[in-house]
Amino acid sequence: MPDITLSTQDVKTLKSLAGMAESVAKQAFRKKDPAVDIPVRALSNVHFNDRKRIIEMGKRTSQRQLFNLSQARSFMQTMLVADGTKQLIEQGKSTSIRGLYYLLKHTIQGIKEETFNGQEECDPVIEDMEVLINSLREELHLAANPAGAMVGNITLIDKDDEIDCSRMGSGGYAVPSIVEPNVIRFKKCPAKFILHVEKGTVWNRFNEDKFWKKHNCILIHGGGQPPRGVRRLLYRLHNELKLPVYCLLDNDPWGYYIYSVVKQGSINLAFESQRMAIPEARFLGLRSNDFKRCNLSESVKIALNDTDRKRAKQISEYPWFKNKKQWQKEIALMLDNGFKLEVEALSNQSISFVTDEYVPQRLKEENFLD
Amino acid sequence: MPDITLSTQDVKTLKSLAGMAESVAKQAFRKKDPAVDIPVRALSNVHFNDRKRIIEMGKRTSQRQLFNLSQARSFMQTMLVADGTKQLIEQGKSTSIRGLYYLLKHTIQGIKEETFNGQEECDPVIEDMEVLINSLREELHLAANPAGAMVGNITLIDKDDEIDCSRMGSGGYAVPSIVEPNVIRFKKCPAKFILHVEKGTVWNRFNEDKFWKKHNCILIHGGGQPPRGVRRLLYRLHNELKLPVYCLLDNDPWGYYIYSVVKQGSINLAFESQRMAIPEARFLGLRSNDFKRCNLSESVKIALNDTDRKRAKQISEYPWFKNKKQWQKEIALMLDNGFKLEVEALSNQSISFVTDEYVPQRLKEENFLD
Repeated sequence: MPDITLSTQDVKTLKSLAGMAESVAKQAFRKKDPAVDIPVRALSNVHFNDRKRIIEMGKRTSQRQLFNLSQARSFMQTMLVADGTKQLIEQGKSTSIRGLYYLLKHTIQGIKEETFNGQEECDPVIEDMEVLINSLREELHLAANPAGAMVGNITLIDKDDEIDCSRMGSGGYAVPSIVEPNVIRFKKCPAKFILHVEKGTVWNRFNEDKFWKKHNCILIHGGGQPPRGVRRLLYRLHNELKLPVYCLLDNDPWGYYIYSVVKQGSINLAFESQRMAIPEARFLGLRSNDFKRCNLSESVKIALNDTDRKRAKQISEYPWFKNKKQWQKEIALMLDNGFKLEVEALSNQSISFVTDEYVPQRLKEENFLD
Repeated sequence: MPDITLSTQDVKTLKSLAGMAESVAKQAFRKKDPAVDIPVRALSNVHFNDRKRIIEMGKRTSQRQLFNLSQARSFMQTMLVADGTKQLIEQGKSTSIRGLYYLLKHTIQGIKEETFNGQEECDPVIEDMEVLINSLREELHLAANPAGAMVGNITLIDKDDEIDCSRMGSGGYAVPSIVEPNVIRFKKCPAKFILHVEKGTVWNRFNEDKFWKKHNCILIHGGGQPPRGVRRLLYRLHNELKLPVYCLLDNDPWGYYIYSVVKQGSINLAFESQRMAIPEARFLGLRSNDFKRCNLSESVKIALNDTDRKRAKQISEYPWFKNKKQWQKEIALMLDNGFKLEVEALSNQSISFVTDEYVPQRLKEENFLD
């Protein structure tokens, strides 16, 4: 096996993993029942921090004990996940959560029981591990399905390769799943902001019109709901390079939800918000008043269905939207309209209306939802 | 508007569009009823050409007439699609089939009727246009959702940018939806073959292990079922650079189906096969005997369900599998096994088993299914 040079982050993560293991071993040597204290990931232990404007976990933990009939199995699984991710880091390799599951899945000798009965038994243990040692899964070398692409006025180093995102043709740079500083470093960035669009086809319109060149920005999409890699990259670009993030999404509950995840993180994975969420992200459009404002044809309206209405009401109750007059008005207007609008609907005006007029006007007027 | 330099292909496509329009106009000026003859896209007009080993369309056409109550609407839509794609080509722009739909969707003056009631009314007309003037939709400047990424020993020109795929870090080059010669040109390609894998996470494993460097190849994935851009790029790499294509897919009916589409095209879009299908593509794995051969743990088996069994039988009846003993044996063994296997299951052996042993061994032995 080749020599692996561990990054500072890898050394830190390994130390946390070893620390956890040591504490378990110490308990055993002292003839105490081995146990770990795992922060509770339930909704009851999650709250919205108004000052920091992110979702945070509370301080509640629960004990996972080896000598407890109902916890022995998950205790064993926790140790397996720790061991598996330690191997990954030491070998300088990454895998998917599915790959880790297969790596760790074995029939336990003697008792014919499986270490994991299915991936649904492994995934929560991975999340436990993240909160237990306060590491993102990416720091545990666990990758998700990559999706999304980026172009624009930025040069970055990915592993040892220099990637000039202003020279990436029509395809762009495929955003990897793990974009931690030991993989991606920013070399040069003349760009002044980031435009995040929902869909690859819309991204294509902006890239073809060289929007990022004219407006000196970075253009990124995540193929719908942005995957972790895109969200984490947005976070790093925003925080390390101080670039504002503007989101161009559909005028529908799904678009609102995508914005909400970029901005605040997902409620189920509250623990990652502090390193994924961008409370300062701005919603550039589409807006519920765009149908009138942009003089769109009747025929682009898509009627809201019951699910849409239900989702819209749920989203309007999110803590970060609840006290925002603008958002309440926005959602109320969509419900009142009775229809939703896709970004592509703007091509009803003309093919490049969205790049030549819509977005430049919003940017000029600084007309965003917060 | 900036001056647009049309590519040779664009000039050709415009000529076909104009030719179609002229023939309609001529009929009108001669006081004949305007009509176009559209090749029939129904299954009844599709057959498998044993010699060329691709799905082909027969010669049957059907007339679409303006002065026919049941055809007037689709005649009008056909002309609209021709006009819309002509605009796109002339402006040097591309859009999605959804974008084109919005571009063409209008309320017809006077009669309050919509040009298209929904995208499902527009999509088939686009397919009609493809067969009518014998152009791929990409040549009509229609893009699909991009997906997939590529790395390896190849340098290409995408628009005006030179992309060295051996210097693309962990992310890779995002494969665009339109990869026609007017967008993508191949500059230098020392690579000797192409490894196509199903999933981004598996691709990640191969890229991390620098498989393409060790084995001098191109590594590509399409995020599951490969989108048109990836298929067309594989086709061009295979035919223009004479590179063999090997597919690494799951040992399940879905994996077989992906291989079938890469190899023969999809039955519904038979007309595109001659410029998308790669009859010489080879199925590298996973194979139904890999469970035993690779000494995998019981626990990686995934039981076949009824849908799997049904799909497997359907696929074994495909004309290009029906007379192949190897494929009949392969599918029969999977059914007999009663389980399927994912590529990731190989990490049950060790994390890099798939890149260090499995694929190199198959390549060395030239052990593929055809």
